[in-house]
Amino acid sequence: MAHCNENYLNLQGAYLFATVRQKQNAYVEAHPNADIISLGIGDVTQPLAPAVIEAMHKAVDEMAHMETFRGYGPEQGYLFLREAIAKHDFKDRGCDISPDEIFVSDGAKCDTGNMQEIFAESDVVAVTDPVYPVYVDSNVMAGRSGKFVNGSYERLEYLPCYKECGFKANLPSHDPMIIYLCSPNNPTGAALNKKDLTMWVKYAKQTGSVIFFDAAYEAFITEDDIPHSIYEIEGAKKVAIEFRSYSKTAGFTGVRCGYCVVPKELMLETKSGEKVSANALWDRRQCTKFNGCSYIVQRGAEAIYTEEGQKEIQATLDIYRNNARVILEGVKEAGLTACGGVNSPYVWLSVPKGMTSWEFFDYLLNEAQIICTPGSGFGPCGEGYVRLTSFNTPELTKEAVERLKKAVKKLEK
Amino acid sequence: MAHCNENYLNLQGAYLFATVRQKQNAYVEAHPNADIISLGIGDVTQPLAPAVIEAMHKAVDEMAHMETFRGYGPEQGYLFLREAIAKHDFKDRGCDISPDEIFVSDGAKCDTGNMQEIFAESDVVAVTDPVYPVYVDSNVMAGRSGKFVNGSYERLEYLPCYKECGFKANLPSHDPMIIYLCSPNNPTGAALNKKDLTMWVKYAKQTGSVIFFDAAYEAFITEDDIPHSIYEIEGAKKVAIEFRSYSKTAGFTGVRCGYCVVPKELMLETKSGEKVSANALWDRRQCTKFNGCSYIVQRGAEAIYTEEGQKEIQATLDIYRNNARVILEGVKEAGLTACGGVNSPYVWLSVPKGMTSWEFFDYLLNEAQIICTPGSGFGPCGEGYVRLTSFNTPELTKEAVERLKKAVKKLEK
Repeated sequence: MAHCNENYLNLQGAYLFATVRQKQNAYVEAHPNADIISLGIGDVTQPLAPAVIEAMHKAVDEMAHMETFRGYGPEQGYLFLREAIAKHDFKDRGCDISPDEIFVSDGAKCDTGNMQEIFAESDVVAVTDPVYPVYVDSNVMAGRSGKFVNGSYERLEYLPCYKECGFKANLPSHDPMIIYLCSPNNPTGAALNKKDLTMWVKYAKQTGSVIFFDAAYEAFITEDDIPHSIYEIEGAKKVAIEFRSYSKTAGFTGVRCGYCVVPKELMLETKSGEKVSANALWDRRQCTKFNGCSYIVQRGAEAIYTEEGQKEIQATLDIYRNNARVILEGVKEAGLTACGGVNSPYVWLSVPKGMTSWEFFDYLLNEAQIICTPGSGFGPCGEGYVRLTSFNTPELTKEAVERLKKAVKKLEK
Repeated sequence: MAHCNENYLNLQGAYLFATVRQKQNAYVEAHPNADIISLGIGDVTQPLAPAVIEAMHKAVDEMAHMETFRGYGPEQGYLFLREAIAKHDFKDRGCDISPDEIFVSDGAKCDTGNMQEIFAESDVVAVTDPVYPVYVDSNVMAGRSGKFVNGSYERLEYLPCYKECGFKANLPSHDPMIIYLCSPNNPTGAALNKKDLTMWVKYAKQTGSVIFFDAAYEAFITEDDIPHSIYEIEGAKKVAIEFRSYSKTAGFTGVRCGYCVVPKELMLETKSGEKVSANALWDRRQCTKFNGCSYIVQRGAEAIYTEEGQKEIQATLDIYRNNARVILEGVKEAGLTACGGVNSPYVWLSVPKGMTSWEFFDYLLNEAQIICTPGSGFGPCGEGYVRLTSFNTPELTKEAVERLKKAVKKLEK
């Protein structure tokens, strides 16, 4: 009999966002006229930039004629896009990243989920707590965890992020091999500054660890001291892989495009001490199991880097940045403490006393028809928090904040 | 120090098609005026169907307006597409497959590469020889093989396909757990008939094996006795996963869309004998590591199933079918023996005596500026063969066949 990958059986319940969606659907089915506002799943609502629309129309037209038709593209992504990325996202920020260190994909979820494949199963993984579930679940599936006991997986190293430390993790207590860092952070909204990142790069060098740096939310950075790329830190190319996404930057959640950077200087080791290029391994992985991102989509992504495209996506990002400010202020007015919202589309707030994350989720859904994301779904240290996102419209965001304030007030009675 | 996945180090050389492309590029660089005709990498050349173009334009326009904008879609694919697939590709052929057994992806290469993840690392894998390299390489990466010794990987069970048996594999000599079958076959073009597939389904049932049935080329089937889906065979839903692709069916090699079917009846076992649903495991895998296929692309795929779309893609497929016939006839006129070309876009031909596959590849490139794919890249039994594809234009295909005949004749002198 064919056997299943039993690591999957260690996984806890359903994937967090799928559960949130199911709860929302169940509520809508029971209350067909309910006027639900979602600040839950971090999905964008503003339409694509006109420059992106135009570029994709043009690409679709190219596919209609033999002279301009495109079949299989390079597994690593078209050079026109990788060159635009290298220039705008890196060289213009002083980071020397070349196109052959960039791998275009259909999204950062795939990349952050798949990258662990090129590492040894025995490597120890460190994640912050709370954490984006994909980092944990993809490693559980790959056999890098033990059982789930008392709210966390054996063998994973959890780095707790407490309010007292600005929701930033301390260095691990013993040396991990793979360290997942997300900045600006999902879910807490905390952003690592130059000093923080310098500490992590130094630690990785000393211990031979590799940092998986998830910069999916870098477009929301507003403060000067927060690096947009880990390669702004000296020496990071020897120790870090970076993940980027157009999902939030340019509203590509339904279009699907992202990329990762695997520097050529980054070396892994065999058990017997030989050096192996991470770039070469990832290239082989992508060439074998991936066939490149849709040509039409890559032309859309390229258009983001034009002058027009930049103006347009910044205008949309401003809407979300304003929403984040409105939420943060509203939450504070409601008497709850909160983090994020400044360099991040996420506001991370402590739930009213005596409630769990899921209880507050249910309360907000039933009392105010607001969808949030329960903090406990992001890890044990997320218990007592929920995450609100700034991706809804300004009108609905304001409305949601009013409802939230009212609902919290009602609790106090 | 972080360690690499040492299974990757067992991999042999570069990915076959990447090597072919590199050789082609090197030749073009050395001979800038060379008039190369590629019958090598199986990439399409005809533009997309007008119905697909129209649907994708419409979808792009929807993304330009807030009222019709789409963000994250279901990880399994939109229901509109899964319902069209269930009806047209299965119910209309008498196969009872429901939308929740269908998972839309960005291509069959990803699906055939990733599906092994939900199986135990210790499961024995059987592949035909010659074989599409992704089946082998993805299992080598996952640790299901030993070292590469004398042309094949230890621990994998190779099922040789000889000319004498119509390039069809016999049943394994001992019981494997996972069996990869591709019909119509890449690279040989051989197609399994009802009797063949009934034998495989029966064998899988008896041994508790699971068949990975790759039907990426089903659109090329012309003979009545060749099943388009393995689910046309009774009982197959208990033992088979099927992979489909729009790459060759509708020219989607650069658009990127495919799907797989994981029937709810298909059960895997834990080591202690508990039953686990393969459908549930794959759903969890996709929800965790994949974020759905581009909305624009899914609307394009949906349009294939309209009356207009069907007419248009059949007209394009007829071009390729004709090319296959032209190649097959030309190859026979050249005095070489060949398989395929009838239910398949591939013609598999034996190379002139005394030459290896790569030698004939180099000879055709240098002598006739034709790109083929060396059979030995598909496995030890592929030595002595090359694969020609019918995806070029009718004019260039005819021209290539004339050149090939001349080049072969020259060898005889």
